[in-house]
Amino acid sequence: MNGIKALTFDVFGTVVDWRSSIARELRTFFEPRSLSRDWFAFINDWRDLYQPAMEDVRSQRRPFVILDVLHRENLIKLLEKYDIQGLSEDDILELNTCWHHLKPWPDSVDGLLELRKSFTLATLSNGNIALMTNLARYSALPWDVILGAEFAQAYKPDARAYLRTASALGLEPCQCMMVAAHNVDLRAARKLGFRTAYVNRPTEYGPDQVTDLGPEENWDITCSSLIELAKLLR
Amino acid sequence: MNGIKALTFDVFGTVVDWRSSIARELRTFFEPRSLSRDWFAFINDWRDLYQPAMEDVRSQRRPFVILDVLHRENLIKLLEKYDIQGLSEDDILELNTCWHHLKPWPDSVDGLLELRKSFTLATLSNGNIALMTNLARYSALPWDVILGAEFAQAYKPDARAYLRTASALGLEPCQCMMVAAHNVDLRAARKLGFRTAYVNRPTEYGPDQVTDLGPEENWDITCSSLIELAKLLR
Repeated sequence: MNGIKALTFDVFGTVVDWRSSIARELRTFFEPRSLSRDWFAFINDWRDLYQPAMEDVRSQRRPFVILDVLHRENLIKLLEKYDIQGLSEDDILELNTCWHHLKPWPDSVDGLLELRKSFTLATLSNGNIALMTNLARYSALPWDVILGAEFAQAYKPDARAYLRTASALGLEPCQCMMVAAHNVDLRAARKLGFRTAYVNRPTEYGPDQVTDLGPEENWDITCSSLIELAKLLR
Repeated sequence: MNGIKALTFDVFGTVVDWRSSIARELRTFFEPRSLSRDWFAFINDWRDLYQPAMEDVRSQRRPFVILDVLHRENLIKLLEKYDIQGLSEDDILELNTCWHHLKPWPDSVDGLLELRKSFTLATLSNGNIALMTNLARYSALPWDVILGAEFAQAYKPDARAYLRTASALGLEPCQCMMVAAHNVDLRAARKLGFRTAYVNRPTEYGPDQVTDLGPEENWDITCSSLIELAKLLR
């Protein structure tokens, strides 16, 4: 592990628990409006639309737009599917912004604070800069710098997202360790020379999760929390 | 002041005392090598080459390159001018990196910590991302996000540096307040709709400073420290 200067983090699922957070935000928003739906199904659908929306950008079918825009387009589709009507523009903005208010996993903040003593901590997320900035303020995530998709104008696993992040840090890929709960993310990073740390988050998608239930390659580190990662990197 | 969500900061001179810091770093580097020069003259020369180097980018005589590159080119010129020979590539890198190790003014950290309770704090500096990140870690500057020239691929006072920073924050210019010790910086920001705070730093260039000895327009706020700024914005 010698020579690692920065840890670059996936955020959704790896650092924050988006599923429970969004469920809470949706209930809080809709309960006073006496509207009830299966919010976990709604969230799963919202997340299911996430990859195809980014794929439109990756494949150059459309120019780069930030994740807030993709989330909003997908939200509009879901409001129709779930027969939710009569929301104002402000309501839709408020709902879309629930992605800026996600709670960290219980180990995340303590783990990051420990890791920050030895490494530069950068986000390498597909979330846009305002989203990541607001999220960090909301959940006290002690990033040194917010990089990733919007900075690189490319969505992971596009190589540019990783390479431009390393370059902005003034580092070679081999001086960076990608930290993620998703094998596909680590696979892309390793191919470019990043070191890799897999964080097991087997309930990110709820109790019936079927993907990323464990490491699929011999990643440089496999761990179950960011606190454990800090211990292993010591 | 209603509606301000983010403060965007000039850093060199406004938040950190580059002149004393670089003087200390040069002495520390050259004393063991038994080499003495007028280091304050050397620093002034280094800083004098700063604007013309950026102007080559602003005027599109050359494509955007980060400030570390411009600093290095200027350093090479000065080593010749001051008849300093025999440095290795590693030496030159170490000297150039002294811009990553600048001490804050005595009020800066406390002021920023207070301001951060109410506002998102973003850098809007001409320094590159690695420089700003390393500087923040070195001097414990509590930025929420590092934006500015490298992110915008444009050097202040080019309008794009300000507008792309506001846009990345998800804000309109009028929701941002530019904080700077330089009238020219505030003038450019105000023209684009930013609110403006002038921080008086009359010894940034040493005892014989001739520019930016006071506010040249009726900026929204004029103050002498970031602690005072926090009080005035309360």
